[in-house]
Amino acid sequence: MSLALVIPDRKLGALVEKLQALLPGVLVQQWPDYSAPEQVQMAVVWKQPAGSLVALSELKSLQSFGAGVDNILSDPDLPDLPLARIVDPHLTQSMLGYLDSVLGYYQQRLDLFIQQQQQQQWKPKSPRNIRHLCVLGLGELGAAAASHFAALGYQVSGWSRSEKHLAGVQCYAGEQGFASAVALADLVVCLLPLTAETTDFLNSDRLALLKPGAILVNVARGAVLDDSALLAALGSGHLQAACLDVFRQEPLPATDPYWSHPAVLVTPHCSAVTNVDTAVAQIAENYRRTLNGLPLLHLVDKARGY
Amino acid sequence: MSLALVIPDRKLGALVEKLQALLPGVLVQQWPDYSAPEQVQMAVVWKQPAGSLVALSELKSLQSFGAGVDNILSDPDLPDLPLARIVDPHLTQSMLGYLDSVLGYYQQRLDLFIQQQQQQQWKPKSPRNIRHLCVLGLGELGAAAASHFAALGYQVSGWSRSEKHLAGVQCYAGEQGFASAVALADLVVCLLPLTAETTDFLNSDRLALLKPGAILVNVARGAVLDDSALLAALGSGHLQAACLDVFRQEPLPATDPYWSHPAVLVTPHCSAVTNVDTAVAQIAENYRRTLNGLPLLHLVDKARGY
Repeated sequence: MSLALVIPDRKLGALVEKLQALLPGVLVQQWPDYSAPEQVQMAVVWKQPAGSLVALSELKSLQSFGAGVDNILSDPDLPDLPLARIVDPHLTQSMLGYLDSVLGYYQQRLDLFIQQQQQQQWKPKSPRNIRHLCVLGLGELGAAAASHFAALGYQVSGWSRSEKHLAGVQCYAGEQGFASAVALADLVVCLLPLTAETTDFLNSDRLALLKPGAILVNVARGAVLDDSALLAALGSGHLQAACLDVFRQEPLPATDPYWSHPAVLVTPHCSAVTNVDTAVAQIAENYRRTLNGLPLLHLVDKARGY
Repeated sequence: MSLALVIPDRKLGALVEKLQALLPGVLVQQWPDYSAPEQVQMAVVWKQPAGSLVALSELKSLQSFGAGVDNILSDPDLPDLPLARIVDPHLTQSMLGYLDSVLGYYQQRLDLFIQQQQQQQWKPKSPRNIRHLCVLGLGELGAAAASHFAALGYQVSGWSRSEKHLAGVQCYAGEQGFASAVALADLVVCLLPLTAETTDFLNSDRLALLKPGAILVNVARGAVLDDSALLAALGSGHLQAACLDVFRQEPLPATDPYWSHPAVLVTPHCSAVTNVDTAVAQIAENYRRTLNGLPLLHLVDKARGY
C-alpha cells in the first residue's frame, strides 16, 4: 500500500509526517525518489513534471494538492484516472480575509498614502467611495466572496459562464452578461477557473467594458488576464489600479514590469493557502476510497476543467 | 447676529455656504477679516491662533470644529466661556473604517509584501495571526472601536483612566491596569484624549509593557506618544511596526525620521474626518442655543480636557 507525492519545489516533511499519522502502514513515496513505484495506488499532484507519473504502473486515482487543477490538467501525459481536488473551508476564509484586506487598502487609499510617504508628501484625502463590487466566476470561492460582500452591505454583481442564483447578488451569465456585470463596479474581483475558454479572458476588449477608474483584483490564475491589455488599461488611466496575486509565471520574473508599476500591488500568490491539516484529512479519506473502490470526494469534471 | 469662523489654513467656502443656508440672516465672519467683531455671539474654533478671539467682545460661547479640543484648550488667551465639540456618528464610522483597513493591512502582511515588491522579491508568507487587540482610551471613539472589534470576534482589552464596562471587552483602569491591558495584545490602538496627563503617556516604560512583536496604531494625538521611545522600541525589535495617523507637528516635517522608517506607515491625519453636514447642523443648533441662553449640545468638561 503506497501513496506518492508528486509536488516539486516544496518542503514536504510536515505533510509526510501528518499523512503517516493518519495512514499507518502506508508507504509515502516522494517524486523523484520512488522506492517502489509499482506499489502506488494514488498520487497527490501539484504542478507535476511531464512524465513524473509514468512509473506508477498501478495508479488508480489522482488527488490535487490544491483547489485549482489547471496545473494538473495541462500535463500532456496525464493518465486517464479520476482526479479529486481539495475543498477547504479554511481556503475560503483565507480568500475572504485577503479580499477584505485589499478592499480596505483601496477604500482607505493606503496605496496613495504609501506613495506619498515615499515622497514625504502630506496630502490628506477622504477615502475612496467603493460601493459596487463585481465578482467574475461564481464557483466555490467566487460565490462565497460575492455573498460575503453582499452581507457586508456592498452592491454586488457576479458573472459566470452558466447562470447562477445567489441571494443579494445580481448574477449575469454569458458573453452578453459580462458588460452588465462589470459596468457599475468600482472594484472587480477575478475568481474565474483557468480553462481553455478563460485563458486571456480579461483581454483589452473586456477590460474596456469596466467602469472608468475601476480597480481590478486578480486572485484566480495569471493566465486568465492578458498582461499587456492590463498594462495598457492602467497606462491610459481607464483602470485606476490593480492588485495581482497570481501570474502567468510564478515566481514573477525579476524583469516583469508589474514589480515597479506604481498602480500595481503584487502579492506572492498567498490569497488562498491550503490548510495542511484539511488537505491531509481529504487526501487520507480519498486514499481509503481508492483502496476500497469508492468514488472520490470532490471529484473534478475534467471536461469543464474544475 | 453673527458667527465667527476661526479656522486657519482651510478652505471654508463650503462651510460658510452651508451655515448661511441653515442660519439665514446671520452674518458669518472669518478670522482674520472680521467686519463687525462686536456682533459675534459664538466662535467656531480649530487651532485658533493666540489672540484671535480678543476682538470678539460680546462672545458668549465657543464651538470646536472637531471632536478633539486639545488644540483649543492650549490657547493661553482662551476666554472662559462654554465650549462645545462636534460629536459625529459619521466620525465613528470613519474611524472604524480606517482601523479595519489598517488591521487588514497588517493581518495580510501587505506591509511586508509592499517592501518585497520594491525589492522584486517573491516570498509567500501566511497571514499574521492577530487575535488580541487592545484599545487605549474608551471615550466615544475608543469604546466604539473596542466594541466593534469584539463583535468581529477578536479578543479585546481596553484601558481608560476611570473604570468602564463594555460588553465583550476586558476593561482595565489606572496605572496598574495598563500592564494587564496591553500584555497580550498583538495590536494596540491608541485613542486617548490629549490632556496634561496623557502627554507623552506612551513613553519607553509603558511601551516596554507591550507584548514583544506588537503593532502600535496611533489615531489619537501625536503628543500622547513619545516619538524617541517609539523609534527605540521599533529599532530594538520590541515592537514590530507602527501605523501613525497623528503627529506632534502636522503636517509632518520633511526631515522627520518616520517618513522613511521601514516599519512605520504614515497616513496624513485622515482616520476620522468630520463630516461637514453633521458639523454644520450641530454648529447651527448650538448657535441657536447660544442666542436663547440654553445649554450647548456636547459641552466639554474643560477640567478633564474632553
